[in-house]
Amino acid sequence: MGKKLKIGIIGAGRIGKLHSENIVNNFKDIEIKAIADIFADKIEDWARSIGIQNIYEDYHDILNDEEIEAVLICSSTNTHARITIEAANRGKHIFCEKPIDFDVNKIKEALNVVNKAGVKFQIGFNRRFDHNFKKVHELVKSGKIGEPHIIKVTSRDPQAPPIDYVKVSGGMFIDMTIHDFDMVRYLSDSEVEEVYTNAAVLVDPQIGEVGDVDTAIISLKFKNGAIGVIDNSRSAAYGYDQRVEVFGSLGAVTVSNDTETTAVLHTVDGILSDNPKYFFLERYKDSFIEEMREFFDSIINDTETPVTGIDGLKPVLIGMAAKKSYEENKPIRLDEITV
Amino acid sequence: MGKKLKIGIIGAGRIGKLHSENIVNNFKDIEIKAIADIFADKIEDWARSIGIQNIYEDYHDILNDEEIEAVLICSSTNTHARITIEAANRGKHIFCEKPIDFDVNKIKEALNVVNKAGVKFQIGFNRRFDHNFKKVHELVKSGKIGEPHIIKVTSRDPQAPPIDYVKVSGGMFIDMTIHDFDMVRYLSDSEVEEVYTNAAVLVDPQIGEVGDVDTAIISLKFKNGAIGVIDNSRSAAYGYDQRVEVFGSLGAVTVSNDTETTAVLHTVDGILSDNPKYFFLERYKDSFIEEMREFFDSIINDTETPVTGIDGLKPVLIGMAAKKSYEENKPIRLDEITV
Amino acid sequence: MGKKLKIGIIGAGRIGKLHSENIVNNFKDIEIKAIADIFADKIEDWARSIGIQNIYEDYHDILNDEEIEAVLICSSTNTHARITIEAANRGKHIFCEKPIDFDVNKIKEALNVVNKAGVKFQIGFNRRFDHNFKKVHELVKSGKIGEPHIIKVTSRDPQAPPIDYVKVSGGMFIDMTIHDFDMVRYLSDSEVEEVYTNAAVLVDPQIGEVGDVDTAIISLKFKNGAIGVIDNSRSAAYGYDQRVEVFGSLGAVTVSNDTETTAVLHTVDGILSDNPKYFFLERYKDSFIEEMREFFDSIINDTETPVTGIDGLKPVLIGMAAKKSYEENKPIRLDEITV
Amino acid sequence: MGKKLKIGIIGAGRIGKLHSENIVNNFKDIEIKAIADIFADKIEDWARSIGIQNIYEDYHDILNDEEIEAVLICSSTNTHARITIEAANRGKHIFCEKPIDFDVNKIKEALNVVNKAGVKFQIGFNRRFDHNFKKVHELVKSGKIGEPHIIKVTSRDPQAPPIDYVKVSGGMFIDMTIHDFDMVRYLSDSEVEEVYTNAAVLVDPQIGEVGDVDTAIISLKFKNGAIGVIDNSRSAAYGYDQRVEVFGSLGAVTVSNDTETTAVLHTVDGILSDNPKYFFLERYKDSFIEEMREFFDSIINDTETPVTGIDGLKPVLIGMAAKKSYEENKPIRLDEITV
Repeated sequence: MGKKLKIGIIGAGRIGKLHSENIVNNFKDIEIKAIADIFADKIEDWARSIGIQNIYEDYHDILNDEEIEAVLICSSTNTHARITIEAANRGKHIFCEKPIDFDVNKIKEALNVVNKAGVKFQIGFNRRFDHNFKKVHELVKSGKIGEPHIIKVTSRDPQAPPIDYVKVSGGMFIDMTIHDFDMVRYLSDSEVEEVYTNAAVLVDPQIGEVGDVDTAIISLKFKNGAIGVIDNSRSAAYGYDQRVEVFGSLGAVTVSNDTETTAVLHTVDGILSDNPKYFFLERYKDSFIEEMREFFDSIINDTETPVTGIDGLKPVLIGMAAKKSYEENKPIRLDEITV
Repeated sequence: MGKKLKIGIIGAGRIGKLHSENIVNNFKDIEIKAIADIFADKIEDWARSIGIQNIYEDYHDILNDEEIEAVLICSSTNTHARITIEAANRGKHIFCEKPIDFDVNKIKEALNVVNKAGVKFQIGFNRRFDHNFKKVHELVKSGKIGEPHIIKVTSRDPQAPPIDYVKVSGGMFIDMTIHDFDMVRYLSDSEVEEVYTNAAVLVDPQIGEVGDVDTAIISLKFKNGAIGVIDNSRSAAYGYDQRVEVFGSLGAVTVSNDTETTAVLHTVDGILSDNPKYFFLERYKDSFIEEMREFFDSIINDTETPVTGIDGLKPVLIGMAAKKSYEENKPIRLDEITV
Repeated sequence: MGKKLKIGIIGAGRIGKLHSENIVNNFKDIEIKAIADIFADKIEDWARSIGIQNIYEDYHDILNDEEIEAVLICSSTNTHARITIEAANRGKHIFCEKPIDFDVNKIKEALNVVNKAGVKFQIGFNRRFDHNFKKVHELVKSGKIGEPHIIKVTSRDPQAPPIDYVKVSGGMFIDMTIHDFDMVRYLSDSEVEEVYTNAAVLVDPQIGEVGDVDTAIISLKFKNGAIGVIDNSRSAAYGYDQRVEVFGSLGAVTVSNDTETTAVLHTVDGILSDNPKYFFLERYKDSFIEEMREFFDSIINDTETPVTGIDGLKPVLIGMAAKKSYEENKPIRLDEITV
Repeated sequence: MGKKLKIGIIGAGRIGKLHSENIVNNFKDIEIKAIADIFADKIEDWARSIGIQNIYEDYHDILNDEEIEAVLICSSTNTHARITIEAANRGKHIFCEKPIDFDVNKIKEALNVVNKAGVKFQIGFNRRFDHNFKKVHELVKSGKIGEPHIIKVTSRDPQAPPIDYVKVSGGMFIDMTIHDFDMVRYLSDSEVEEVYTNAAVLVDPQIGEVGDVDTAIISLKFKNGAIGVIDNSRSAAYGYDQRVEVFGSLGAVTVSNDTETTAVLHTVDGILSDNPKYFFLERYKDSFIEEMREFFDSIINDTETPVTGIDGLKPVLIGMAAKKSYEENKPIRLDEITV
């Protein structure tokens, strides 16, 4: 066993804590040397309990630590681009939660600095590391379904977020569908060229009042000729619905939802199975560990990260096109998105 | 047992024969008194074998028979409107295969005559009578999934039709998707207001050369606020793929494909189940009987037919909008379709 | 189309009527020339409505009709052996409902006469013609699961029969499990050598009071070395449960129950699918037609029937062994069954 | 956070290592103070890598450590009873892998000492902590299926163990079916009263040559009147097959196998799903953590352990009865097992 890779965590909200605990429990060769949060005092007990010694209020204390080779940026979205730039300039490898920013110019600027600095950069599209979607990707790659013709994603949350979140999240296409935009890129192995959005406010009128939608069907054209569709809802009564399907010239591959158990109850009322796993923390539990594994591997082996800067930029562009399409009720080409 | 209802069949191609045999085998109180086909001599043996006594070349011989109370119009599409008008004028009840015509004005004219004549008129959208889709419809009606938000139809044929058929069929949206347009109307219990078509030629370039598409994602807006999507392919390697899903405020209802058996083979290569039933004759076998049952019931009980003239008109209009949307690459409102 | 095969039906209870209607609706080349029932007057209207002209009280009128080439014996069990003998002696081909008799000597005597007469003889084990079980049989035969090691049958009725029926039916092993004994013979392509019965009265104490059981696990040894198990219940709250599994050296094949639809309702309460089809008339609907098809084919083509006399005898012997095993609480070899 | 509970691990083979790593990764409040193995030098690197400081050759060094409150006995079966007795006499709480011994008298003696010492004792029947089986147990307990009538367990290994293992393992009923005997006790909430074994050598003749079987159907009678059946194979080509079913007066509950993914490939060859998870380490991964959680909880909260001494004894008795039944080909009552 050689020297441990030392890392720092910036931001200790829900996702920062999740990554920290996953690392402590799963990666013996990785040491979380420090964690920074603007409410440093509130996270102290938790951080000590998992063995993190250095707890800072100011993330610059992490960036200034020469022993720390990589950082996880888990702070609020509006800080991602800035911290990315600062960290890259200090030569730190970066894992950054999505989205990099709501502003495409800021994303491009950050990615520019990252490129020049030559540091590793990975964006937190964890669903690519999910067992089901990875298998779909493999089967598509294997050629078993031939040329992809239709890519379908069903992505529905179990319940709508608080209205205060909707106001600042960038809207459904940026805070929720962004994962699906990444997924269609991942599964199609191509780029989205054009988007048409059919959306509505059906779950909660308040969502409409703050200028967002809660239900959508987004039609997509890909560079390789394939077509696709995403359907979203903020509120599926039966739980978190996360399915994909790739249909091609030789067949199709589908995935259904994960459930807590395979138990089936047979009574006079029918044959009853489990609902899908509750929400993303349960459904994508292992994917958060796997994305870390591949991030660390790319540092240790000096290979490319599995989700790069361009993978962070593209879904934001698609999200903007989706929004514009909804507002203007016409298909929008990605190259029309000027920023 | 009272007097048998006497009917005549006009057109003895595949679908005319299918209905004839279904009636002979399933409806003891219905008598097929006569059948007419322009190739009368070629169908004689078959017709006699199922007990049809009168075989005519000219369908007017059926219309002129006062004992015959109802006709099934199973001839080629370009004759449907004309025969409908003639039959209605003779006071015959009419079951007409879809579509009534490719020309909306001719459809409207025919329906006008039908209305004035006060005869029963049913259009052959057999899928409404399929056990699976009927159950979806019932569950939606029951309120168990709340208000419908998203209506989804996957409809893929096992293989593309001959190119000569594609040339005269009216194109994929009229010869194939028309069933799906009817299905979304049936399941949503609402009307399509706007259509956006995302389509491509991915199966066979020849189909593109004759001006048609073979793969499509059609996005829909309904009057009741719901949204929907149909995805089509002319060629699914694994067979006839016929699924629907209605997602609502309280849940969802889905149906998967019917298979010949429930047998599952477990080997080192995986867990292998049956492909879907081969094509529409196999998949929708019973629905062709059920639509007849309800047609005859509506005559006998003098009630409204379950699929009316307007149900014959609307899907053609949606198909025209879908085609126009594809040609102009923009969403098309149904009320923009002038004819 | 040549001359029709003329047949007679003996016994017009539920199963006699079912076969009659199936034949009228599905076999144009077969003519039911006559039907006999001790309550001839009660079946007259029904018989006429499906076109049967000759309705007799005495089945000898059928046996005496030289034009009639085959008979279906659908009368009460205690008459099967006698009528079989008489019919064979008149040179009629015979389809006989199961069981041939409760008395093994009578069965053997009847089969003897049949053999000497050289007439076709088929026993009504309709489940062999079920789409699911036929597929299992084919997959086993194909060698895809290798050598069979374990044969499993789950067979549970939706509700217990009236106690008056239980008193005279021969008991659960003879009136119900007999089908499963035939199934294991069919699927194993071997013979049962030994039986051990583990049974109980758990559904209804009245069943115990008349000397029968209502719940059983029957362990089997086959001549080819395989082992097997049948589990039975007279009352499955969720419906008619009819599953089989054959496990072999290279894999397994299983079948699940048939349902009316593939509709699945997803709500906060779980994911709800259809119960199995209600009972044997629904579940095995098509198998009753298929067994007739093969019976008629064997007559027309002069080939062996698919379910022969020995197939009628063996399950009765196994049933007797099962009962003896239960009574003595020890495994019973089939060759211990002396009669 | 209070003082950590200090424990020792005795035996660092596959299962000892598995528990150690699970504890290190999942239980921050538990400290593995020491580990003992007769090949102490071979495990040193591994033990240090997960932070265990004290590595002994002699497990008495653990028993002599007064700070250590509990031990996990993961050594070879022939040492379980002896170490249990010694550990209990030192006042250590005990988690002991199954079986306690092959000799019932030794088991009883060990349990006696445990009882007198008043220490916690848990036996390693991890499958009770599996998500699927726990859910079945809950549903049975909930009364949703009414009174249990039939308990079924299918338990097939993906491949037969080395013949050298079979020679010393106690045979299939003790090394493999023992888990299923525990499972039927767990699911029935009752005791097995009588066993009848139908078994064969179908997988590998060598297994027969050393006096064991590789395929079995074991029929069971329970004290509460229910009946049951276990079917076993040493070699299922399609993988580790672990299913249970409890059928009762109001319905049934079933579980199917866990798979790595829900991906389904649809091609012209059929609809292909994943095989079951490979073997017990994959299939029961989480159950090994859960059994530890409940063991530690029972110590910390001073409550009864979820799998007690009697739960360690009974399956061995049933296994002996199963073997005797096979040898004598007759049902064996548990109370006939004298030792």
